[in-house]
Amino acid sequence: MEKKIFTSVSALLFSLAMLAQNDDSLTIRKIANEVLTNGKAYDNLRFLCKKIGPRLSGSANAQKAVEATARMLKEAGADTVYLQPCMVPHWVRGAKEKGYIQMADGIRKNLNLCALGNSVGSGKKGVNAGIVEIRSFVELDKLGAAIIKGKIVFFNFPMNPTYIETFTAYGESGSSRTTGPSKAAKYGAIAVMVRSLASNADDYPHTGVTIYTDSLPKIPAVAISTNDAEWLSRQLKMKMQLTGFIQTNCAILPDAPSFNVVGEIRGTQFPEEIISVGGHLDSWDLAEGAQDDGAGIVQSIEVLRAIKTVVSKPQRTIRAVMFMNEENGGRGAEKYLELAKANKEKHLFGLESDAGGFTPRGFGFDVSEKAFEKITGWKNLFYPYGASNFTKGGGGADIGPLKTIGAGVCGLRPDSQRYFDVHHASTDVFENVSRRELHLGALNMAALVYLVDKNGL
Amino acid sequence: MEKKIFTSVSALLFSLAMLAQNDDSLTIRKIANEVLTNGKAYDNLRFLCKKIGPRLSGSANAQKAVEATARMLKEAGADTVYLQPCMVPHWVRGAKEKGYIQMADGIRKNLNLCALGNSVGSGKKGVNAGIVEIRSFVELDKLGAAIIKGKIVFFNFPMNPTYIETFTAYGESGSSRTTGPSKAAKYGAIAVMVRSLASNADDYPHTGVTIYTDSLPKIPAVAISTNDAEWLSRQLKMKMQLTGFIQTNCAILPDAPSFNVVGEIRGTQFPEEIISVGGHLDSWDLAEGAQDDGAGIVQSIEVLRAIKTVVSKPQRTIRAVMFMNEENGGRGAEKYLELAKANKEKHLFGLESDAGGFTPRGFGFDVSEKAFEKITGWKNLFYPYGASNFTKGGGGADIGPLKTIGAGVCGLRPDSQRYFDVHHASTDVFENVSRRELHLGALNMAALVYLVDKNGL
Repeated sequence: MEKKIFTSVSALLFSLAMLAQNDDSLTIRKIANEVLTNGKAYDNLRFLCKKIGPRLSGSANAQKAVEATARMLKEAGADTVYLQPCMVPHWVRGAKEKGYIQMADGIRKNLNLCALGNSVGSGKKGVNAGIVEIRSFVELDKLGAAIIKGKIVFFNFPMNPTYIETFTAYGESGSSRTTGPSKAAKYGAIAVMVRSLASNADDYPHTGVTIYTDSLPKIPAVAISTNDAEWLSRQLKMKMQLTGFIQTNCAILPDAPSFNVVGEIRGTQFPEEIISVGGHLDSWDLAEGAQDDGAGIVQSIEVLRAIKTVVSKPQRTIRAVMFMNEENGGRGAEKYLELAKANKEKHLFGLESDAGGFTPRGFGFDVSEKAFEKITGWKNLFYPYGASNFTKGGGGADIGPLKTIGAGVCGLRPDSQRYFDVHHASTDVFENVSRRELHLGALNMAALVYLVDKNGL
Repeated sequence: MEKKIFTSVSALLFSLAMLAQNDDSLTIRKIANEVLTNGKAYDNLRFLCKKIGPRLSGSANAQKAVEATARMLKEAGADTVYLQPCMVPHWVRGAKEKGYIQMADGIRKNLNLCALGNSVGSGKKGVNAGIVEIRSFVELDKLGAAIIKGKIVFFNFPMNPTYIETFTAYGESGSSRTTGPSKAAKYGAIAVMVRSLASNADDYPHTGVTIYTDSLPKIPAVAISTNDAEWLSRQLKMKMQLTGFIQTNCAILPDAPSFNVVGEIRGTQFPEEIISVGGHLDSWDLAEGAQDDGAGIVQSIEVLRAIKTVVSKPQRTIRAVMFMNEENGGRGAEKYLELAKANKEKHLFGLESDAGGFTPRGFGFDVSEKAFEKITGWKNLFYPYGASNFTKGGGGADIGPLKTIGAGVCGLRPDSQRYFDVHHASTDVFENVSRRELHLGALNMAALVYLVDKNGL
């Protein structure tokens, strides 16, 4: 008898759970229909890319992007839109940069290059020296000052094409760009050429931040295109006599004032519990920053719009955050965290989209075990919309720090195959974003925010 | 004791199964590394698209594509390469086609249009008439001859954006293009404009085959761009007085000689058991046919190359088949089946790639229950490479018919979000194909062919 009652109670609980799931699947279907039919993310992205364009921290365009997204957030239905002032590094590329390889037979080959972000300029005379190709830091250490001193180091770390997830290859080869220049400077190199961190063979240089070690000389550092890197490597293998020339005119100006932009829908039941969803508003100066990270920006705004339209009154406070300065400083993320602490805010959850607006495949979570178990129970709800691959390890450069104040953090995981074709290059333009892929990402993000808002974590 | 022996035997069998799986996963890793590192599919596709271009059945370019792929198959390592002669329909678009909307206020708006494949031309005078917008065949039947007679019917069947799989939307709206013209002719319409079957809002008309009912008058039929369709629909809703003009110069010439191209690696153990992998070589005349279906062609050649390079001597006979005339007749598929029957060939399995060279998500199978169970056992092997979504229902227009002679058939299922942005339009060009996505598709296809060859079905 007892068993029977128990069975009935579990059956009832099970039915209630099923009803809740059913209710959720209907709401998520409504969110999906809203975003796929009336979504504004694609049009907003067109504005960011085509009416504004590159938005490097400290630039006039970055300020225009602040104003434009404040407007978009209001249009999306935010109760409140406000700016968070923060000072940002102000690196400028300066006038035309150039470089070439001078062959012993007199032929000169111009290089497709660009200065790395935050790098120093070469001065008007440029840098002229022999070139040493380096395929690993072990090799660099082995050659040491005897070979490196006075030379231009050419870091040729191709992205491994056999990794299925391109971010893995980026992570592995990326050190050539971030720490390579200072590692070369340690042995007396006078400049660095880095093979672009790109997954395709083409003629576009891909920039990105380099991080100097303060105790070492800061030497000019440029990226060269993958085609140029292949060509240069072949020449060096044939023991060709050659020298390299680089001239860059970049400089680091004093920090400039800028802003994060925040749009908020205040919660009705637990307004003190905050769910943040964001991307970064700044982009490199060579690119429209369409996939990196205009996509994440307009998706975050779309999440707010979809929640407002379909859910109307969320229980918790939903914030869409346009972080400034992810590319070369992370000051926006620092400021957001600092203010959260100062205001004693309670951050329940943060979701970041900064891996491109491609077809979503899942989410990566950095949350408690208990929360991950809860979230895993929602997985089937995402299956029809493609983002059901839930893995551990998530967050991102801007949202990740919220973990330190107790928030569960998470990153959208889109298909990664095309991202590094355009990442940080002039090919990262609006035309290379698919409306459907972008909106599919936004609707999956909105579905996740809906579930966290409804159920807590 | 008996139980113990039984346990040991199962443990042994289990271990053997695991070892086999492990062996398979190593071979598939080798296939993946080979394709991702040395794959030729992308370069072959560049040749097909840029050195040849559009390849409509019966055209000089189609013949060039026959010759080029015969060469590519040899280079890929086929033992034998041969042609299968077949007669194909020879539809030609003719000289410049045009059309416009004439408004009552004298303003004339030119339309972005193109004749539908296999449609008749309008004659030199063109067709000039009032326009009736139709949103469903139910609506068409309701209006009937009283309203339709003497008019241009404008079928406005948008692809439903809320379907996550775009092929579902294509299937639903596609009847406007295939059977719409004859359905309108039944009520006395004198021409048809079809809203392009496209998933995006732009100015490109998307062609595709129309299929006339022989007993009804054949009337000129064109596709107009989605932007034009939206504009025209708005004008008609505002009860604007307008007429439409269409002039097309297409014609159906007598059937022309053409070929399927077949490359083969003969099996060492069971040479009489054939595994076919293919795509279609013809494309529409407006497009480079990069995604549709240059991708499937070069992936099939790459499967042969990967099997030859990694497996070397397959047990069964592996054929890569370049089918002619999928777009407007299916005569290549007919011929392949006819010869298979005439030669009493034993077809074990057929795999088709004709859904674009996008990131692969899985395969659709039309095989026996027993075979599906066996195949499902391989699923985990595909997980690392993205194509682990195994569903029932597969094949395709060219490979599907092999089912009638006992073969299991299967279609590659890539991500479908971008396909109908470019499908059958002048935007289906090489530049819209990603090397990594294309090669990922090829390596998953090669892995499946490897497993079927090794294990049978």
